[in-house]
Amino acid sequence: MRKIEIYDTTLRDGAQSEDISFSVEDKLRILAKLDKFGVHYIEGGWPGANPKDADFFRQAKKLKLNNSKLSAFGATHRASLPVSKDPSIKELLSARTPVVTIVGKTWDFHVREALRVSQQTNLDLISNTISYLKKRVPQVFFDAEHFFDGYKANPEYALKTLKAASSAGADCLVLCDTNGGTMPGEIGETVREIVRILDIPVGIHAHNDSECAVANSLVAVESGASQVQGTINGLGERCGNANLISVIPGLKLKLKKNCVTDNKLRKIKEVSRFVTEISNLRHFKRQPYVGDSAFAHKGGIHVSAVVRHPETYEHIRPERVGNYQRVLVSDLSGRSNIIRKIKDFKLKIDPDSPKVFQIVRELKELENQGFQFEGAEASFELLIKKTFGLHRRFFDLTGFRVIDEKRKEGETPSSEATIMLTVDGKPEHTAATGNGPVNAIDNALRKALEKFYPQLKDVKLLDYKVRVLTAGVGTKAKVRVLIESGDKTHKWGTVGVSENIIEASWQALVDSIEYKLLRG
Amino acid sequence: MRKIEIYDTTLRDGAQSEDISFSVEDKLRILAKLDKFGVHYIEGGWPGANPKDADFFRQAKKLKLNNSKLSAFGATHRASLPVSKDPSIKELLSARTPVVTIVGKTWDFHVREALRVSQQTNLDLISNTISYLKKRVPQVFFDAEHFFDGYKANPEYALKTLKAASSAGADCLVLCDTNGGTMPGEIGETVREIVRILDIPVGIHAHNDSECAVANSLVAVESGASQVQGTINGLGERCGNANLISVIPGLKLKLKKNCVTDNKLRKIKEVSRFVTEISNLRHFKRQPYVGDSAFAHKGGIHVSAVVRHPETYEHIRPERVGNYQRVLVSDLSGRSNIIRKIKDFKLKIDPDSPKVFQIVRELKELENQGFQFEGAEASFELLIKKTFGLHRRFFDLTGFRVIDEKRKEGETPSSEATIMLTVDGKPEHTAATGNGPVNAIDNALRKALEKFYPQLKDVKLLDYKVRVLTAGVGTKAKVRVLIESGDKTHKWGTVGVSENIIEASWQALVDSIEYKLLRG
Repeated sequence: MRKIEIYDTTLRDGAQSEDISFSVEDKLRILAKLDKFGVHYIEGGWPGANPKDADFFRQAKKLKLNNSKLSAFGATHRASLPVSKDPSIKELLSARTPVVTIVGKTWDFHVREALRVSQQTNLDLISNTISYLKKRVPQVFFDAEHFFDGYKANPEYALKTLKAASSAGADCLVLCDTNGGTMPGEIGETVREIVRILDIPVGIHAHNDSECAVANSLVAVESGASQVQGTINGLGERCGNANLISVIPGLKLKLKKNCVTDNKLRKIKEVSRFVTEISNLRHFKRQPYVGDSAFAHKGGIHVSAVVRHPETYEHIRPERVGNYQRVLVSDLSGRSNIIRKIKDFKLKIDPDSPKVFQIVRELKELENQGFQFEGAEASFELLIKKTFGLHRRFFDLTGFRVIDEKRKEGETPSSEATIMLTVDGKPEHTAATGNGPVNAIDNALRKALEKFYPQLKDVKLLDYKVRVLTAGVGTKAKVRVLIESGDKTHKWGTVGVSENIIEASWQALVDSIEYKLLRG
Repeated sequence: MRKIEIYDTTLRDGAQSEDISFSVEDKLRILAKLDKFGVHYIEGGWPGANPKDADFFRQAKKLKLNNSKLSAFGATHRASLPVSKDPSIKELLSARTPVVTIVGKTWDFHVREALRVSQQTNLDLISNTISYLKKRVPQVFFDAEHFFDGYKANPEYALKTLKAASSAGADCLVLCDTNGGTMPGEIGETVREIVRILDIPVGIHAHNDSECAVANSLVAVESGASQVQGTINGLGERCGNANLISVIPGLKLKLKKNCVTDNKLRKIKEVSRFVTEISNLRHFKRQPYVGDSAFAHKGGIHVSAVVRHPETYEHIRPERVGNYQRVLVSDLSGRSNIIRKIKDFKLKIDPDSPKVFQIVRELKELENQGFQFEGAEASFELLIKKTFGLHRRFFDLTGFRVIDEKRKEGETPSSEATIMLTVDGKPEHTAATGNGPVNAIDNALRKALEKFYPQLKDVKLLDYKVRVLTAGVGTKAKVRVLIESGDKTHKWGTVGVSENIIEASWQALVDSIEYKLLRG
């Protein structure tokens, strides 16, 4: 079984998506998730072009990755400077990653019109940059920009650029369909030719402008490519990049290529959801493999056939990608997910307990209401603990009130919360201000509780996300609040859903505090 | 140029999407739109299985189609009845369509496990049904269900089913990848074999469970298929069907096949949007060819290249599919981006004005503060108008106050806002409740202004997103609020940034109202 390497560029190409603006903190969380999932390479950004990315690499250096290698992205050096003097190349090296990927021009039209240098100069830029980096970085990949267009327009020159990179020591030549316009037939033909001509690993980097990026990546592997670049959920500029969430199961389950273990593959839905939540986007129900509808069956005969023999209407077993069959009968696969979670949380619970079924039912009900527990595992853990009687109340709310006031244009409003609660019958009544009502409530609640639970002094609210859920017919729109909290050693996510944003925020705040106090 | 026929099944397979429930009226509107667009065949439904579909066909009979032929869908007749007595077949004929499509089993496993008849009986069912219909309907197509799986499992039997349909007079054999699990390489190989063996037109009907449906359809055409079945926007059960909105430009612009005229192709974005609206779904920004992001460009150097030579980063001219180039305002943007925007907004402004540079500076400053204009073009347009003196104030705020109160656990908080403002010196003082403080302020502000500006009654708040921006060292965390508003014909996005969520929301709300009032 030939091994195929997965190169994730969610943090670089994916971050170019129109709606996305990852903070450094977001990027670090995605990095940790992808490392745990076990892609081979994670491209963190372009340190020479983007100061935020440089900051990310400074912080990423402190993390120890267990499965993946971190990669920094850059372009061939400027023609006006020697490679050793180019500040972008310096930034790239200062990221201190074990892998560097260099993009270079391969299409003569781009060399002339975009780079505006001679064909020979471009070859020199590629060669200089790669040989300079190869002396300083263990692995250097060459991203052959616009390769398929370039090879069609001027095959001789396009091939020269690959040979320049290869001779300079590149470890892999990644053929890019930068504009995303190449058809699968042509991808296959070109990759086969390059693999035949050059004795060096070849990769594929596809964009989805023709809605062929996943297929093009799979066809390239069938034609001899051994590295696939893409992004989680197909994020990326314009129509996005090849969606690794579909590429990976395609490679593993359809083309029988070794790329991730069976165990990791079962986490792919979770990875997809995680990135969707961090991106503050909506889940796409029809998303292949991992969408809520991907294995959902309507229609009577169809359903009875699919329940007896899932392969009648399912191309793979959904459990292999962490998904499950959805039909109008209660399913056992939901239960197995819960049991897996219970194990993940290291809770000592009998997996055959009827309470597990109770959790399945409750979970479905909560999801119907708009709760979403990916990104809010602390709330999910609390739900399980409540069902198993492992939870206790830490305080009783008597009531709170928040007042926001703005007295003229140009003035920042003031927010003040008052709260009254009791802990073991002892009342506490206090007040606090904040940058808005939720912050004021959070401050007042913490101020009231810290007297009784001093460990709450370490807890900080790290992120707060609000999403309006589409209203069903005849119902009010609901709001979902996701909160990320942290102390000195941990971070955890909680969720609240209500028609009222204050109530949804309150639920998520209370979950956050209870989670901390239960963990001790 | 070989002609490829397009067979749309949005009204049958597309209607199986989990989130969709078309009324008969919806279906008639889509029928008229698709006929105008000019697909060759429109499958209206399954009159023998669905009473709503039977009703649709009764009404569709009254319409005169100019470009398309209407098709009715059905299955092979029941084994327990002769074809002439089968009520489903009667319903099918009573739809009086010039085309009928019959689905039949081709996978021996399905014949045994789902249909539960002998292999010979299944061949008879296919043969009887098609020859009976062919005497009564001008064109009869055979949908070879699960053909690719069946051909892999038992090629001899699968081929027999095709031959049975062909001998009985079928006009086209449509090879279905019903479970959507077949890879492009296998699709190409199988279609080539069938086209070689059988002297009858072959079609392709692909599902998107492996995210390969569009590519598989294009590969099938490259391999000899002459009919492509699919749905608008890829609607359909599970992960949906082949997306005709991507298949058609792929056929026409990439494979150079004749399927729709150049003029019709320019309407394809409109067709896509129309079906999205009727489906009550959201537009998918990254949708190939027709999405808002499909030809959107970030990044300075990149943008200057794409403005000079669009083919540097665009696989086709967006105008060919009714779309257009968009230059995004982002932290990498320069003056050329702004000038493009000014043109997009149809503002009459001298692009060489020093004010353009002023906007560039202001934009960078605002982006440093955390503003993001990519989902908030209305706020950006206001910024430009303010700089060029094309903006005016519509009201002056005297002040507002919001109170949120929760008096016990389990109770949804109440939110009440009071506002005082003046319009041309006339004071207005009012109050409103809401599902949280922002909703209450929005309601109160609109209530106060509608007296003076009745056109605000049409405006609705469609989406509200909140994001906490990571705090820099020594600064307070900021909050970014994105609001999407809409009236009967337009949607627009606005943004606000502040340390205080109420202030950020206020900015975005005021921008939304000012944008509407300036547009008149």
